[in-house]
Amino acid sequence: MKLEIKQSILMEHLNYVIKGISSKNIIPVLNCIKFELTNEGLYLMSTDNDIAIKTFITKEKIEKIEMLGTILVSGRYIYEIIRKLPGEVIKIEEVLDNKIDIKTANSNFNLNCNEASEFPILDLQDSENPIIMNQAIFKTIIRQTAFASSQQESRPALTGINFSINGNTLEASATDSYRVSKKKVELKEESKIPVNIIIPTRNLNELIKLLEEDDENIELHIFSNKIIFKFNSIIMMSRLINGDFPDLSKLIPDTYYLEVTVNLNTFYKALDRASLLTNESDKNIVTFRTDEDIAQISSNIPEIGHVEETVDIEKNNENEIEISFSSKYMMDAVRTLECENIKIMFNGELKPIIIKNLDDDNLIELIVPIRTY
Amino acid sequence: MKLEIKQSILMEHLNYVIKGISSKNIIPVLNCIKFELTNEGLYLMSTDNDIAIKTFITKEKIEKIEMLGTILVSGRYIYEIIRKLPGEVIKIEEVLDNKIDIKTANSNFNLNCNEASEFPILDLQDSENPIIMNQAIFKTIIRQTAFASSQQESRPALTGINFSINGNTLEASATDSYRVSKKKVELKEESKIPVNIIIPTRNLNELIKLLEEDDENIELHIFSNKIIFKFNSIIMMSRLINGDFPDLSKLIPDTYYLEVTVNLNTFYKALDRASLLTNESDKNIVTFRTDEDIAQISSNIPEIGHVEETVDIEKNNENEIEISFSSKYMMDAVRTLECENIKIMFNGELKPIIIKNLDDDNLIELIVPIRTY
Repeated sequence: MKLEIKQSILMEHLNYVIKGISSKNIIPVLNCIKFELTNEGLYLMSTDNDIAIKTFITKEKIEKIEMLGTILVSGRYIYEIIRKLPGEVIKIEEVLDNKIDIKTANSNFNLNCNEASEFPILDLQDSENPIIMNQAIFKTIIRQTAFASSQQESRPALTGINFSINGNTLEASATDSYRVSKKKVELKEESKIPVNIIIPTRNLNELIKLLEEDDENIELHIFSNKIIFKFNSIIMMSRLINGDFPDLSKLIPDTYYLEVTVNLNTFYKALDRASLLTNESDKNIVTFRTDEDIAQISSNIPEIGHVEETVDIEKNNENEIEISFSSKYMMDAVRTLECENIKIMFNGELKPIIIKNLDDDNLIELIVPIRTY
Repeated sequence: MKLEIKQSILMEHLNYVIKGISSKNIIPVLNCIKFELTNEGLYLMSTDNDIAIKTFITKEKIEKIEMLGTILVSGRYIYEIIRKLPGEVIKIEEVLDNKIDIKTANSNFNLNCNEASEFPILDLQDSENPIIMNQAIFKTIIRQTAFASSQQESRPALTGINFSINGNTLEASATDSYRVSKKKVELKEESKIPVNIIIPTRNLNELIKLLEEDDENIELHIFSNKIIFKFNSIIMMSRLINGDFPDLSKLIPDTYYLEVTVNLNTFYKALDRASLLTNESDKNIVTFRTDEDIAQISSNIPEIGHVEETVDIEKNNENEIEISFSSKYMMDAVRTLECENIKIMFNGELKPIIIKNLDDDNLIELIVPIRTY
């Protein structure tokens, strides 16, 4: 392999594939980036066996292709070296004995490489009927649901986001069994087959770092045990989680004992202050109590003191409620809604609380209250 | 104690005194901020027994002083509460049983306080002949020397910066025994008595966070076991370190075997890249070798590879040198010089290396080479 390429172009693509490398991996080839120089251009690939990322630099963007070939080089080192080289044309050349030279006018790096044949064979072929959607919309779906996923590996299904597609309706749901975030989106095209998969949340969080905010599309190629995302010049593969995702539809009632409307920003800031006198070890409990057109949010740490915050509310009936919940979970839910006013719905002090945008039912937040006696 | 004060004004001063609180302190009163409301205004104080900070808000900046008094309240909590309250007027009132209320229109915090009499008595009186200098200059002195201090408590004198004042010359020196940074400054006024003290570097690093970049002065009040800094509305006290600071003057030779001139930025970037193939556990060793009008900086990690960087140099004679040193220490020294071209001076491969600004002898950097065989 021998080529000359601008530092800025190579760096842009190394920024993509470096995300496929886990720093914790003890298998050497999984810490490597594979460079594959063909007549069409340069492919870069990385995988940690949980995700794989492949990116492509077309030959038009490469200054000189002198000899085709494949090398496997330490991801961390090549990334840092290219990052710190000046913005010039860089010469990369495979030399004897699995080594490469990386050269600019004043720098000369010589790196040992791994045997290219040791890199896992990745099947990144398209599926027959990909789901196609806007990248910005896909990014929003992940951002609005991922936080509700569980971090606990003891229930693997809850560490992912459930994507269920029927016709042209996509529903993404995440839960850690104390809260739920559920987002509905209409697809432009109907899916030919129904989809019900669980994608690891950690991988989706890596994926959205690579997505643009613009109008470009992303393709979802779904297989029985993996999903392949195609967008811009990037292909990313993630394994799927086996197992059944809990049926959350029954959790959301049709009728409520009380609906409260509140300004999102005011409510969030009051929760944030009340949180100061809560303990994380104690689930950050705050108590919410309505009293006609105001609500009080209170909390305390006995040794330190107590706090009472007051917010203006509107209610849909004469009922009142006093209920306790995690301020952290409520803040996560409220922050996600991104609107001016929100609706909080109650069915009693031991029943799940539903939080929604006032004018939009496509995003539903649910949190379980905490019994305090 | 009872007062009303704007959130922004109280916050500005809490930002000062919070730096006097160590999060690691297990003595409750040392985690507290003392509020002392007098007819002249509000004093805020904190101490962790190593430093003390006192700041003053004049009565003109306070909305209402209703009842004088003193309270002692958890620094961490009062800081976070005031920080998160809206930018309004805040009412703070001592209520029964060592408690305070902190109120705005919609928030009502009630905090437990400590017994005010438990706060250490701080003697923050002026000395007779303070040293006076520009804050920006003082800040530069600290920034250019502090990094060379030792982190190791086993030799306490090396964890501080030595300030020695004779007549109107101030010399600040720091060393961890592998490197030295030494800065000389002319004072506007002669000091009546010679000074030779060691101030803990950690405390000076906290102090410079409080200093402005403008033309205001700072007063240094020096006592046998402490130093008091007065600037703006702030008084900060630091203990001094007992012990003898090593005599560094003999380390700096008058003549050199070879003087090399190099562009600072080019040299720094070459070192930074060469550092990529060094190990911290191995002191980040790089080798510097002159060859007529160029120098080569090389390093290697046997399993990973090697690198050779080339920089243009000017020499003052025909001599050549090959010498090894810590790239990290050299980069720390070079970065500190803040100029276009630097002079690097050698007396042999086992003798200290001196680094200076090409046109200014007031800042001298020294690093000890590393024997590689």
